Amino acid sequence: MKLFTAGPVEMFGSTKEIAGSQLPYFRTPEFSEIMLRSEGLVKKLSGAPKGSRAVFLTASGTGAMEASVINLFGTQDRLLVVAGGSFGERFAEICDRHRIEHETIRLEFGEILSGDHLVPYDGKGFTGMLINIHETSTGQLYDIGIVSDFCRKNGMILVVDAISSFLADDMDMMKSSVDAMIFSSQKVLALSPGLSGIVISERACERIEKAIPSSVYFDMRRYLKDMERGQPPFTPAVGTILEMDDMLQRIGRIGVRAQVERMKRTAEHFRERIPELDIELPGYPLSNALTPLLFKHGNALGVYERLRAEHGITLTPSGGPLRDRMLRVGHMGNITEDDQNDLIIRLGKVLE
Amino acid sequence: MKLFTAGPVEMFGSTKEIAGSQLPYFRTPEFSEIMLRSEGLVKKLSGAPKGSRAVFLTASGTGAMEASVINLFGTQDRLLVVAGGSFGERFAEICDRHRIEHETIRLEFGEILSGDHLVPYDGKGFTGMLINIHETSTGQLYDIGIVSDFCRKNGMILVVDAISSFLADDMDMMKSSVDAMIFSSQKVLALSPGLSGIVISERACERIEKAIPSSVYFDMRRYLKDMERGQPPFTPAVGTILEMDDMLQRIGRIGVRAQVERMKRTAEHFRERIPELDIELPGYPLSNALTPLLFKHGNALGVYERLRAEHGITLTPSGGPLRDRMLRVGHMGNITEDDQNDLIIRLGKVLE
Repeated sequence: MKLFTAGPVEMFGSTKEIAGSQLPYFRTPEFSEIMLRSEGLVKKLSGAPKGSRAVFLTASGTGAMEASVINLFGTQDRLLVVAGGSFGERFAEICDRHRIEHETIRLEFGEILSGDHLVPYDGKGFTGMLINIHETSTGQLYDIGIVSDFCRKNGMILVVDAISSFLADDMDMMKSSVDAMIFSSQKVLALSPGLSGIVISERACERIEKAIPSSVYFDMRRYLKDMERGQPPFTPAVGTILEMDDMLQRIGRIGVRAQVERMKRTAEHFRERIPELDIELPGYPLSNALTPLLFKHGNALGVYERLRAEHGITLTPSGGPLRDRMLRVGHMGNITEDDQNDLIIRLGKVLE
Repeated sequence: MKLFTAGPVEMFGSTKEIAGSQLPYFRTPEFSEIMLRSEGLVKKLSGAPKGSRAVFLTASGTGAMEASVINLFGTQDRLLVVAGGSFGERFAEICDRHRIEHETIRLEFGEILSGDHLVPYDGKGFTGMLINIHETSTGQLYDIGIVSDFCRKNGMILVVDAISSFLADDMDMMKSSVDAMIFSSQKVLALSPGLSGIVISERACERIEKAIPSSVYFDMRRYLKDMERGQPPFTPAVGTILEMDDMLQRIGRIGVRAQVERMKRTAEHFRERIPELDIELPGYPLSNALTPLLFKHGNALGVYERLRAEHGITLTPSGGPLRDRMLRVGHMGNITEDDQNDLIIRLGKVLE
């Protein structure tokens, strides 16, 4: 089965080799060294400014989203949430659950986020913004520049869920004044799921130090403190941390620019061939991480099932109202141009 | 390096083989089948009564402890916490953080939990009890019978952290009227860390349905609902779930009684040889999962370091006041009697 999914994705040989090895005990100087090296690398690869820190959570992306919200904000805050799909709605749900005042900018399917959407909230006392820079459920990549300018102008803390965008799309924490950048292991890093990370700006760290979040497990003061000596407060996903160490070093060697270029080429190579098929692409900007395919005849789920059953290929199905309309093709992980060519041919056969 | 640790532990070949394989996509009927099979097996192996359910969380044990507390209890409850070490203190901390009224029974190091400790709380309106049935930080195994009788008499909900006791020691949820039994992947199951589970009685499920916990990520209503069709609400630790499926089936085939017997024999085999050494065992009842060693000359950490550096053996060091006094020898995972004999010889050499 070949995976063109949103995670887990096709893993690289070195990752599987590490995953298949006996795990070490983690309360050791050797493990601390790995954790600190990973912190340094994610900071470097995300363009984090001086004074930034990183924490690693044993949790899926939603856990890291919730941890960011409850550690950075409280009842005195007023947040702006961009909800252009199910992951944006999740940020809104997290604010609801924790009774954090917020307004939600809801986008219709296909609607492109623009500066106009933000105008009504300008100068209205908002203290923070929550955005999934790549809304994975639709594939829309928002314009970080618009968001970043607005936050700077309004003195807002900017939290970016980059779970399916980190290392796929251009983003630099310093350039875009991002205060918290969230990522997960099973996306571009192509590792086992179960590990998420947050890179945190200096001023966001200061907020964390002053807050008492409504969770012990997600109390980031504890993670920041223990991370000073490279240790996690609770037993971490040791195996996935070792996989991450290897992958971050590999990407660190080629550099973030080359990495994003590679993702861009892969995505473009695939998209160039779409006109051959009876399929449309959405009109909004896309991440290099995946390509949403729109099926004109409402047969998305049928195509998904036939590709799985007859061709050994798994695309990413959609939920809710997009179920019959959209499939998403992941470009993350160990996917070659040949794999993509093969997918195009098989998609063509299924659509015939 | 041979691990006699509290987790991760020495893994079995089949686990490493699964861990080293490409992960599948999880929004599929095949994955649902695995999740449902695992639910059935953990229920069976824990002696869960009819109407019980199980959920799997992508989190370490502390996450599952917090999830249990915030989903089962609220500000209307009054809890009794047994704190005989750092994991008991963690339960108390979780109650503090969530402003849940509680009394804590604090045990001195070496003090055995008895019925007398509970007498002052009898008939005082307590609604629930939180206990780490094996307090991993000291190795004391509490008497589930005492706790269970007290909870039944007082109509209390009984939450048992069995993270380092499940499948090592005798415990039957039905026989002991346990309402929530917490376990983690990296202990007796000897899997990768990062996955925890909770087996939940019918009346505890009813409590969950009525509560709105202060977390989206740990909202167990969502896990219970999605688990009806074998799916997790958020991307799970897919690899560890596959490892768990394999291990639960293996243990399911030999049965829980034979499994606990095997752990008992391993622990006893090791303990019988302790008199050869200048080491004491604590006077309290012990779990079959690990043996705490008390070093009379305050040289525990030195022994730990020499075993690591000179003998390729990792025992479990202690934190806090027990740092120089105690090491713990794990019997979980792929440890043979030969490994234990070898450890005894090397411990003797280091202690000479």
